[in-house]
Parts: sequence; C-alpha cells; structure tokens
Amino acid sequence: MVLDNGDTAFILICTALVMLMTPGVGLFYGGLVRRKNLISMVALSFVALSIVTLQWVFFGYSLAFGPDISGIIGSFTFIGLEGVGTTGDGIPDLLFMVFQMAFAAIALAIVTSAVAERVKLSSFIVFGLLWTTLIYDPIAHWVWGGGWAAQMGIVDFAGGIVIHISAGFSALALALVIGKRVGFGQYSMDPHNIPMTLLGGALLWFGWFGFNAGSALAADGLAANAFVVTNISAASGALAWMGASWVRGKPSSLGMISGAIAGLGAITPAAGFVGPLAAVVIGTVSGLLCYYALLFRIRKGLDESLDAWAIHGVGGFWGTLSIGIFAIASIGGVSGLIAGAGEQFLLQAFGAVAVTVFSFAGTYVIARCVDALMGLRVSEDEEYVGLDISQHGESIQV
Amino acid sequence: MVLDNGDTAFILICTALVMLMTPGVGLFYGGLVRRKNLISMVALSFVALSIVTLQWVFFGYSLAFGPDISGIIGSFTFIGLEGVGTTGDGIPDLLFMVFQMAFAAIALAIVTSAVAERVKLSSFIVFGLLWTTLIYDPIAHWVWGGGWAAQMGIVDFAGGIVIHISAGFSALALALVIGKRVGFGQYSMDPHNIPMTLLGGALLWFGWFGFNAGSALAADGLAANAFVVTNISAASGALAWMGASWVRGKPSSLGMISGAIAGLGAITPAAGFVGPLAAVVIGTVSGLLCYYALLFRIRKGLDESLDAWAIHGVGGFWGTLSIGIFAIASIGGVSGLIAGAGEQFLLQAFGAVAVTVFSFAGTYVIARCVDALMGLRVSEDEEYVGLDISQHGESIQV
Amino acid sequence: MVLDNGDTAFILICTALVMLMTPGVGLFYGGLVRRKNLISMVALSFVALSIVTLQWVFFGYSLAFGPDISGIIGSFTFIGLEGVGTTGDGIPDLLFMVFQMAFAAIALAIVTSAVAERVKLSSFIVFGLLWTTLIYDPIAHWVWGGGWAAQMGIVDFAGGIVIHISAGFSALALALVIGKRVGFGQYSMDPHNIPMTLLGGALLWFGWFGFNAGSALAADGLAANAFVVTNISAASGALAWMGASWVRGKPSSLGMISGAIAGLGAITPAAGFVGPLAAVVIGTVSGLLCYYALLFRIRKGLDESLDAWAIHGVGGFWGTLSIGIFAIASIGGVSGLIAGAGEQFLLQAFGAVAVTVFSFAGTYVIARCVDALMGLRVSEDEEYVGLDISQHGESIQV
Repeated sequence: MVLDNGDTAFILICTALVMLMTPGVGLFYGGLVRRKNLISMVALSFVALSIVTLQWVFFGYSLAFGPDISGIIGSFTFIGLEGVGTTGDGIPDLLFMVFQMAFAAIALAIVTSAVAERVKLSSFIVFGLLWTTLIYDPIAHWVWGGGWAAQMGIVDFAGGIVIHISAGFSALALALVIGKRVGFGQYSMDPHNIPMTLLGGALLWFGWFGFNAGSALAADGLAANAFVVTNISAASGALAWMGASWVRGKPSSLGMISGAIAGLGAITPAAGFVGPLAAVVIGTVSGLLCYYALLFRIRKGLDESLDAWAIHGVGGFWGTLSIGIFAIASIGGVSGLIAGAGEQFLLQAFGAVAVTVFSFAGTYVIARCVDALMGLRVSEDEEYVGLDISQHGESIQV
Repeated sequence: MVLDNGDTAFILICTALVMLMTPGVGLFYGGLVRRKNLISMVALSFVALSIVTLQWVFFGYSLAFGPDISGIIGSFTFIGLEGVGTTGDGIPDLLFMVFQMAFAAIALAIVTSAVAERVKLSSFIVFGLLWTTLIYDPIAHWVWGGGWAAQMGIVDFAGGIVIHISAGFSALALALVIGKRVGFGQYSMDPHNIPMTLLGGALLWFGWFGFNAGSALAADGLAANAFVVTNISAASGALAWMGASWVRGKPSSLGMISGAIAGLGAITPAAGFVGPLAAVVIGTVSGLLCYYALLFRIRKGLDESLDAWAIHGVGGFWGTLSIGIFAIASIGGVSGLIAGAGEQFLLQAFGAVAVTVFSFAGTYVIARCVDALMGLRVSEDEEYVGLDISQHGESIQV
Repeated sequence: MVLDNGDTAFILICTALVMLMTPGVGLFYGGLVRRKNLISMVALSFVALSIVTLQWVFFGYSLAFGPDISGIIGSFTFIGLEGVGTTGDGIPDLLFMVFQMAFAAIALAIVTSAVAERVKLSSFIVFGLLWTTLIYDPIAHWVWGGGWAAQMGIVDFAGGIVIHISAGFSALALALVIGKRVGFGQYSMDPHNIPMTLLGGALLWFGWFGFNAGSALAADGLAANAFVVTNISAASGALAWMGASWVRGKPSSLGMISGAIAGLGAITPAAGFVGPLAAVVIGTVSGLLCYYALLFRIRKGLDESLDAWAIHGVGGFWGTLSIGIFAIASIGGVSGLIAGAGEQFLLQAFGAVAVTVFSFAGTYVIARCVDALMGLRVSEDEEYVGLDISQHGESIQV
C-alpha cells in the first residue's frame, strides 16, 4: 500500500489521454454523418462523458469494482466514492477509479454509432444511464472486478471484452431496435467531412496508447510491450484494410483509419499478453475481418450506421480470441495455442461469446423499453431537418 | 533539493498539456466568431503564447516568483532566468518556471474574448505585454509567489484567482474600453463553426487535467484528487448548463461545452482542497451561475464577445469562494464552512474581491492608455472586411 | 540495467506525443494544399506512420540501432525485434525502440511536402520504404546508433541532423525529380484551409515537447532544459518570422506558425546543449533564415511545395551549427565557440554538410529509380481532378 509516483504520473497522464478519446469518437463519427448531424454526434460524445462521469461517481464504480457479490456484481460499498481515497497500492485508489471512469465513458460513446442521425437526445440520456448501469458495469465487474469471468481465468488486458465486444454488439442490438435512417439504401449518406474523421482517428490512435499501455497500471516493461504492440497492430490493420479495399477499387483514407481502429480494437485485450510479431498478425487479420464484416453489414442492409459492430465488435471479438492463440507466458503470464496450451483459447472463446450474448440481448431489451416509454428516435420531420437543428437548435455556417 | 523523476515526468507532461490549451482557446474562440475572423482568433492565441514566453523568460517569471518585495512583487533576481536551473526540490526549477509560463500564456489568450473581431494586432501585442507585466505577474506573485495574499492565507490551487478571475474581469474592462462590434445587437453574430469550438473545448478539457492535477507539483494522491474533481466538476457544469438551457428551449452543444468550461474554471482553485461530492455541487452551481451571467451580459447589451467574464470570471470567483465552503483539511490542509471553519471563506472572499477590483481597474487603465496611444481597434472598414484579411492578409477558402 | 519507472512513464508518454505529430504533419500540410488534395495529404501521413512502423519492426530498427558495422550501418541482430525486450537500462529496450520508431515515421511524413498534390499513392509507398531503409536508417545509425558521426563526436540531441536535415534536403531532391505541379507559377495555389494548418501546427508544437524533452531519455533536469528551450525557440521563431513578414506586408498566421516550426526544428539538435537565452537567438535566427529561404525557393520557381526544405532543412542545418556556437558544457557536456571551443563547430558543420549531401544525392537516386520503375506522379488528368478522388475515391462535402 505504498504509492509509486512514477506509476502515478503515468496513469494520471494515461487517464487524460483516454478522456480525450471520448470527444475523439465524437469527431470521428461527426465526419461520417451528413452535415446536418455533425454537431449532434460530437454533442452525444460530450453527453456520454458527462453522464457516465456522474453515474460512475454515484454508484457505477461501486457496481463494477465494489466487493464482489456472487461473481455477478459489485456491492454498494464504494457508493459516492465512499472509501475511495488518495492512498493505494502503487497508484491512488481515486486514480484507478477515474482511469476506469474514462473507459466507461468511451464505451457509451462508441455505442452512439447505432443511433446516428436519428436519436432523440432525451432518450439517449436515459438509454445511456441504463446501459452503463445494466450492461457495462456488470461486464466490467465480471472481467476486471473479480466476477465470474475473472474467477474462471478469462483475461482482457485493456477492454476487448469489456469495451469493444460490449459496445459493438450493443450497437448492433440498438440499431435493430431504432431502425434504419429515413432513406437508408435509397439515397447517398456518404461521409461529409472526412478530414474531421481523420482528425478524430488521430486523436483515438494517440489516446489508445494511454488506454492500452496504461492498463498495465504501472510504468514498466509490460506497459512498454502494450504500447509497442498497440502501434504495430494499428499500422497492420490500416495496411490490411487498405490492401483489401485496393483490390476492389481505390484505397480510401477512411479504409486506412478504419483499419487502424480495427487493429487497435483487436490488440486491446491482448496488449499485455502477446509480442510484436503476433501483433502484426492480430492487426492484419483484424483489418481484413472488420473490412469484410462492414461489407457484410452493408450487403444485409443493416443500418448500424457508423460500424461500431463491424469494427469494435468484430475486432474486439477476434482480439479476445487471439490471446488464446498468441499469448506467451513470459509476457503476461498466460499461454496460448502456439505456446502449446489450449485451455486459454476455450476460456477466451467462452468469455467472448457470453458477453456478446449478454450485450446484445440486454441492450435489445433496454432499447425496447426506452423506445416504448419515450420513443428512441426523433420524428421523420426532425430527421429530415437534421439533429443539429432539431435537437440542439444549432447549425454550421461554414 | 533532490529531484524526483516520477514527479518531474508528471510535471513535464502536464506542462505540455497546458501549452496545448492556449491554441485550444484559439480554436474554441475561433469557432464562435464570424467566418471572416476565425484565423485572427487562432492567431491571437499563438501571439499570446509567443510574447508571454519571451516576457516570462526576460523578466515576467522574476516579477512573479522572484524573492518577495513587501508582499507586492518579486524582485529582478531571476531576470533572464538567471539562477533558474536544472536542479530543484522535487522538480527542476526550470520546470516549475515553464509550467508557470504556460499558465501566464493561457491567461492572456482568455482575455482575447473581449476584443474578438475588432482588435488591431499591433495594439494587442502592446496591450498583452503590458497586461502580463502589470496585471498578471503581480497577481501571480501575491497568490503563488509569496505575496500578501499568500501571507494572509488565501489559497488558490491552480489559478481560480490568478487566471480565471484576473482574465475574466480584465476581459470585462477591456470590452468596455474597446467598445462593441459594429452592428452588435443589430444583426446576427452567431458562431459560424461550432465543431471547431467543440474541438477546442475538447482540447481544453484534456489540457485542464495537466493544469489542475499538475498544480500538485507532484504525482501523488493530491494530484489524483485534483484530477478526479476536475472531471466531475466539468461534467456537472456541462449537465447543469444543458439542463438550465433546456428549460428555455433546445439544449445547445455550445451550452454543454460552455458549462463544462464553467465547471472547470470553478474547480480550478478548489481542486486540491475539496472532495468528489463537493465537486458535483461546485460544477453544478458554476454551470448555472455562468449561464445566467451570460444571459445577463447579453441582456445588458454588453459586448464582452466570447464570455470570458461570464464563464472564467464568474466561474473562477465562485470556485474561489467554494473553497471556503467545501474545503476539508484532510485533503489540502484547509477547512471551509461545512467543516465548521468560517475564516477561510472570508479570506477567499477578500482575495477574490481584491483581485477582481485590481484586474478590472488595472486593465481599464492599461486599455485606455493603449487606446489613446495607438488605437485598440481597427477601422470600421477593416472590421467589415474582417480581421483575417485586414490584419493577416489571409482567408479561408473552404 | 534497472528500470526506473519515472523515466519509463515519461518516455512512454513522450512517445505517444511524437506519434501524434505524424498526423499533425498531415493536418498541417492538408490545410496548405488545395481543397481537392486535403484528404490525400492526411492519408499520406497515416501511410507513412503505418509503413514505417512495420519496416522498423522487421528490420529498420536493427539497421539503425543494431550493433555497429564499420561505422556505417547496424547489423541484423535485432531483426523482427529479436532480443529487444521489456528490460533495459533506465527504460525498457522496447520503449527506446518505439520512441525511435515515432521519429522515423515523422521524418517520412515531412518529406511528403515535396510531392504534395501530385504523387501516386503506390509509388509513394515504394519510395517511402526505400527512403526509410536507405536514407533514414543509415543516418540514424551514424548519429545515434554508434556510427561514424557519433564516433567523431558530432552531436544531435533530438534529430536536427537525423530528422530535419535529412527530411528537408530529401524533400528538395524529391521535388526536383517529381517536377512542379501542373500550373505552378501560373495560377494561385493558395492554402485553402488555414485553420486546419494552425491546428496541425498546434499539435506539432505540443508533440515537440515529447520529441525534444523525451530525447533526454529520462525525466531529469536535462529534459526540463530541453523543454524550456524548445518553447522559447518556437516563440522566438514565430515572432521573428512575423516581424520580418510584417515589414513586407501583413503578418500572416501562416508566417507565425511557420516561424514556430522553424524555431522548433532549429532547437531540436541543440535542446540538450544550450540554455534559455541562446534559445532566443537560435529561434530568432531560424525564423529569419527560414523565411528568407522560403522567399528564395519561391523566387527560384522551385515547387518544393510545402517548404520542408526551407523550414526543416534550413532550420535543422542552422540548429546543428548552433550547437557549435552556443553549447555550454555544464548543460550537455559540449562546448561551443562562445564558451571558447571551436572544434565542436567544425564537427557540427561537417556532420551537417555530410548528411545534407547524402540525403540530397541518395534521395535523388531513389526517386529517379522509383520514377523510372513505376512513375512517381499521377497523370495530368488525375492531378486536375485532385488526389482525393483520383487516389482515394473520396471528397469533402462541406
């Protein structure tokens, strides 16, 4: 129970980096929608950051990281951050709390993909509070808070299961409930501001170093390993998606950055368990998988609008499995198939499938309830006008 | 006098974060003005950063942090950074100097709110040098450099008095001297590029972690506390302003980010003295107060154009008082009203009022002098054309 | 061989900051080109980051930092990062590797200046891999990897020779090979989105603290010195360029940020060897020199389009020499002319000239080969349409 100020320095700054990722998601998404909804997408990210911050302080952190109740959920011990102080083991308890707060916030921001250009702001706030409480907090508890998944030996270094599978598959369910945008498949909904998406992507890539390396919770060799494989997987994903799309036409910048995010999502769970060359494979496979998932999503006429499912869901799923393939005990204490151990792969697969099912089904139910209660989406008129004006009374004048 | 490299690592990076805030203010303000003045607003932030950097090196740091002269000002001991070296107590003296330099720069950048869309570049440079020397440096000395306020026991963790009250009330005085924009109140001066303001706001929120947590000058539990309450107050301010404006119409994204800045400004002085739940109250009250201050400013027909006064001034004032209400001795060694101690509240109120008066009056005099000497504002023709073309010979072609 | 987690924390975060600089260059350049090529410029920066990452992992790091072969190049010892692990002296070896990776990536991104608005994406990828392997890696080895320059005593704190001279003079050669843009000198090619360039510049200024201070490889007094002189030189360069251009007309914001980059490039090699007042001179001279270099480049009708040569090349050259003038032994162990030692100046001049010649000539040959093999530039039709559509199939709809 002694603080180390090198580690504390590191996690303080990593937390700031992860905090920047939530508006980063907003900018990333904002460039992908039509001009009339750009402000709305960025605003949703700020709303996510704000409501999750308070939820986490009042009870969310306690649900996720309070003393375990039957492997299912944390107790209310830490409610209102009671007992979460400036001391701790290596880093202050309050710092661990706020690092995790940043994770919870970005998870909800990712989910906004599913409701882009059609969600009612008030309904999103209600949905967001329910989702964080009923979906995110339990999953965080299972995997990181000493719940059943942790007890079984399922591992997730920085959130492949907790953030990417949960947000990706929740987005899929939410998209099914809210329904397609008016005119989807009939007229073009091309991204209107690709440079803004690239800027958002740059901030995400940057923040992801805090996300993954910071998950070592210390400024040590493990953090360095996580940092290195994170960058390698991002680069590999970018090149893989670029290459695959080049075969079919021109290599878009959106493909590059999407591939990078795919690589980043996939390496997230594995960053503390695999080495640099495995990261090349993990990123490359993720770039390809997510690209084809996106094509599949489009072919199915499914309007999970900004591809949280195809990129975060599929990439996170693959990354979670990849630990069971590439993990080397000397890095993070876990061995995968290549090291001759099969059990971890089965554990990872079980964890990934269980959280996929829970996220999808749970979010489906929550979304249905919110929709029945207050309507998830705006009126068709408001959708035509755009959410910037209809929800925020604002517009872009450039 | 031994360096700690965990602490040094932390403050080095925090300083970089605060440095990013100055162009962050430029982008934030740039989106709020009319298209023809966007470049000008960002340019002013770079000018502020550049001139304050040199002022600080040559004599500003010495005025603020040199050995105290009668509680009023620092001596010229550190002129040209003489004697400010790579050793120090915990962190190198040079590092403390540059951390404080970043604070001085952003203070001036905030003040540009008052002269948006009408200031003459050359006059701003002269004003800026005078303001930093005659207003900012003395205040920094009083509160942080061992001056009368510090001697009395007035506290200001990260700059509620030194940066936010001083910049906010200086902006008010400066706006009165320079006068309204041509056509103010007659035709629309709506923000033209809200996404840029949101981006600037995101960078400010991010940098603020360096600003407030870094003010612990160590990577310790106090820094963690400052980090946590900073985020909580930002989120609370965003939601409070959003809620208050929702009652009157649609909740704008500008309201959310303005509320966040209001929460951030208010928690700045208090971040090392109050706990998480107090931060909820401080941020919420600040979001509401600053929102109504802004409405008041508009109703009065006052063209303090980008609301440095309503947000930084009012928020910083409230935050300075809030220490006297919510401070708990176990966090930062100071007790407020709720802990049963009334003296600190009176001290804080005295400090806030004194600096308010000094900033307002001093800036008024400086601005009058510069205006008489060389004219603070451009000609009416130049104002119509916009500062981008008239001051910089540039325009946006998108 | 013991890790220090304060130092490790610092370099981890510095590496993240440097990683952000590569898209920062993309945004900086993207605003300077015509609207039809903005996406292309940002995409090239992501391509640079991605291909250099993999090149570095597979063999680039080994070429640059592997055990020395005759002072010329590193051996293949570290191929595939073999033997580069989580232990190290102060910081993990993997962390040093990835910090250097970020440097290699940004060097290539700077070179894209020369081919803006006309390069074929496929050819750039081939050129980039060759350039990093045949130009960058050897130079990095000579100066930092124990090669001939290091053996002679030539010093370069953070990359004045390795990054700025090499990228700047390579850009000059590459521009000569690829030829001018269609219509260059005949019709306006004014920057279309100056705010984006200013944003990119802000990110560069921010990231540069990681670049220069991080080059101390420890969170110590030397890092603090590097941080301080970096900011001073940036500010001085910005004001010098602003002043010089003001004499000839209006002071543009592009001039300010270009001057800042000029100051940053010049202080890069010197940041660990000179003090704050020398930094004022170094930055000021660099701002002036680079400004006149840019005017010279335009007068000569040379289309090194975004001035990597005038700013990075000339600024880096001057900064490399400046060590020989201003270095003080007590800061970084090296003395310059003012301290009464002439030898270092000659060493620095020799190193700067040698790398200038090598970069220019080597890049010229590589570019000629790639051009002969596959054509460096797009067809004239594609150039008229713009690279966004012709190379990426994308466009901006704002």
